[in-house]
Amino acid sequence: SVPLAYKMAIDEPLKMDSLSLAERDQQAKREQGVTETSPMRLRMEKFIKEQQREIVKALEKVDGTKFRVDEWQRKEGGGGITCCLQDGKVFEKAGVGVSVVYGTLPKPAIMKMSANHKNIIEEDGQIPESLEFFAAGLSLIVHPKNPMAPTVHLNYRYFETAKPDGTSGTWWFGGGSDLTPNYLFDEDAVQFHRDLKEVCDKHNKDYFPKFKKWCDEYFYNKHRGESRGIGGIFFDDLDETVSDKENIFAFIQDSLKSFIPTYTSIVNRRKDMPFTPEEKDWQQVRRGRYVEFNLVHDRGTSFGLNTPGARVESILMSMPLTASWKYMHEPEPGSREARLVEVLQNPKEWV
Amino acid sequence: SVPLAYKMAIDEPLKMDSLSLAERDQQAKREQGVTETSPMRLRMEKFIKEQQREIVKALEKVDGTKFRVDEWQRKEGGGGITCCLQDGKVFEKAGVGVSVVYGTLPKPAIMKMSANHKNIIEEDGQIPESLEFFAAGLSLIVHPKNPMAPTVHLNYRYFETAKPDGTSGTWWFGGGSDLTPNYLFDEDAVQFHRDLKEVCDKHNKDYFPKFKKWCDEYFYNKHRGESRGIGGIFFDDLDETVSDKENIFAFIQDSLKSFIPTYTSIVNRRKDMPFTPEEKDWQQVRRGRYVEFNLVHDRGTSFGLNTPGARVESILMSMPLTASWKYMHEPEPGSREARLVEVLQNPKEWV
Repeated sequence: SVPLAYKMAIDEPLKMDSLSLAERDQQAKREQGVTETSPMRLRMEKFIKEQQREIVKALEKVDGTKFRVDEWQRKEGGGGITCCLQDGKVFEKAGVGVSVVYGTLPKPAIMKMSANHKNIIEEDGQIPESLEFFAAGLSLIVHPKNPMAPTVHLNYRYFETAKPDGTSGTWWFGGGSDLTPNYLFDEDAVQFHRDLKEVCDKHNKDYFPKFKKWCDEYFYNKHRGESRGIGGIFFDDLDETVSDKENIFAFIQDSLKSFIPTYTSIVNRRKDMPFTPEEKDWQQVRRGRYVEFNLVHDRGTSFGLNTPGARVESILMSMPLTASWKYMHEPEPGSREARLVEVLQNPKEWV
Repeated sequence: SVPLAYKMAIDEPLKMDSLSLAERDQQAKREQGVTETSPMRLRMEKFIKEQQREIVKALEKVDGTKFRVDEWQRKEGGGGITCCLQDGKVFEKAGVGVSVVYGTLPKPAIMKMSANHKNIIEEDGQIPESLEFFAAGLSLIVHPKNPMAPTVHLNYRYFETAKPDGTSGTWWFGGGSDLTPNYLFDEDAVQFHRDLKEVCDKHNKDYFPKFKKWCDEYFYNKHRGESRGIGGIFFDDLDETVSDKENIFAFIQDSLKSFIPTYTSIVNRRKDMPFTPEEKDWQQVRRGRYVEFNLVHDRGTSFGLNTPGARVESILMSMPLTASWKYMHEPEPGSREARLVEVLQNPKEWV
């Protein structure tokens, strides 16, 4: 038979190196399925795809309209599923997207990442010339028709680089969820934050205060001097310096699963409330501010739009169906509209 | 009497240095008015303010509605006049703004400018620590209600730095005008370009082909793979390497003055044409693309929004009153909508 040394030197490594990370993952899924012992890449992908189906089902039940479902492939590896409901009974636009990306990071991107993730640098202090990476995430935006019902956004994501032997190198999770009402109902704001705090507290008492603050800072329409919405949680770079991978994944799972009960409860309370044409107009102006944040300040959107070959329709699914810009539009002092703006200018602690 | 050397060392320079460029210009306007021998700063300001009044008058005549006029001051020096007509009979939104800015450029900004303007560097090869500057411009965007009538944008501007003795240092003009129809009428596109070509050719036969190409390249919605509109002219950095100041100013004056006859002729042809609700919807989708260009790619807008203390309502006056985003919206093959997109993807020479 073939000597082991020969096999190791020629056969095995060649077999290993000739397959990309994407191909190895495809093979593993085909041959072994995805279990609790699979790499986190496959577990995260499976989890967010399950959650996408659950969320789509739950929103379809609220609206009474089916989502359109588009599956797409990236020629560099990976792909995604984009689910969109447009001009429904309850929702003006609801988008739930999953994307899974395999690719190669060039040296400058690795250098940038090393600022927040020291262990991306090799043991000898060198920055690798290139690294294979994996990124998977679920993103969601729901814009209801009724101006009393708030817009909601959510995103949970996992990133990792591969070592040459295919085992995972640097990794982290990110995510969060935030609420953007046109009219402020304290009951909704409190429920939204209380539910998130409950999930956070179960995992780490420091999470909620830290991630609420991060959310207020991130979703800030700097040029308007106001927040996009009334907060929620936002976090990035959750890695081994914060907790171990299993614990963080458990937190991600609990957070994402908490979305349906919270939001369906809020939207069911608001979707049939009466409103005036003036209140609809105010919603349209607020939608314009949402567009401004997403196109001017959101790092995810600008990264996506600047990525060659990105699926633009999936990225801009976040845009509302309709929006409006009125010159010098200011709410009347003391009005409900003015109260919202006041809170957006001075973020509140709701729990 | 006081010795001359003492006077020169103490009195005159002190008097000179104690006044900023903005203050010296204020004084000159007050004491001497603005004539053909005044500094270009004052002549350009006077000219664009006159043109603003003319354009507002002409658009008010087309619409039958008066503009709202806001005058505002910058505490750092300068200010502007913003004229806006919203929800008129013919125009959904028309904004005509003049801004005049005095300020100080820090060294990094001077270094950046030196790439295109070598003479900003001092004779000894040094880059100055800071420089006083002046910038003035007129900007205009008109979004008509009727989907058959095209949106138009125009901007003419002048920039200069001041030498320590108050005379003008580095200077340049920029500007242009471009048309964005929702439905393509070759007659309009040809007229728009022919009128601009006529003005350009009068001054320099190279201008039109060069500036038309520049326009197609600048107003390009990269992430969509299409131009914002069907072209026009765009130029920047017109300085002494191109022609002398008087000649360029004469070109700027002729270009800006050509706007009213061209656009009123086009809009009067289109403003009362019949249209269907589907054609109105298409206009709304095209408005969304306009918003995308302005918020994602336009350097002027992003510069403005990132300038502390900028008047955001004047910058975002360019936003349409209403816009729409539809997931995966594609015009039917062979339709008029498809023909527009085809031309946006493959810019045409119209004259």
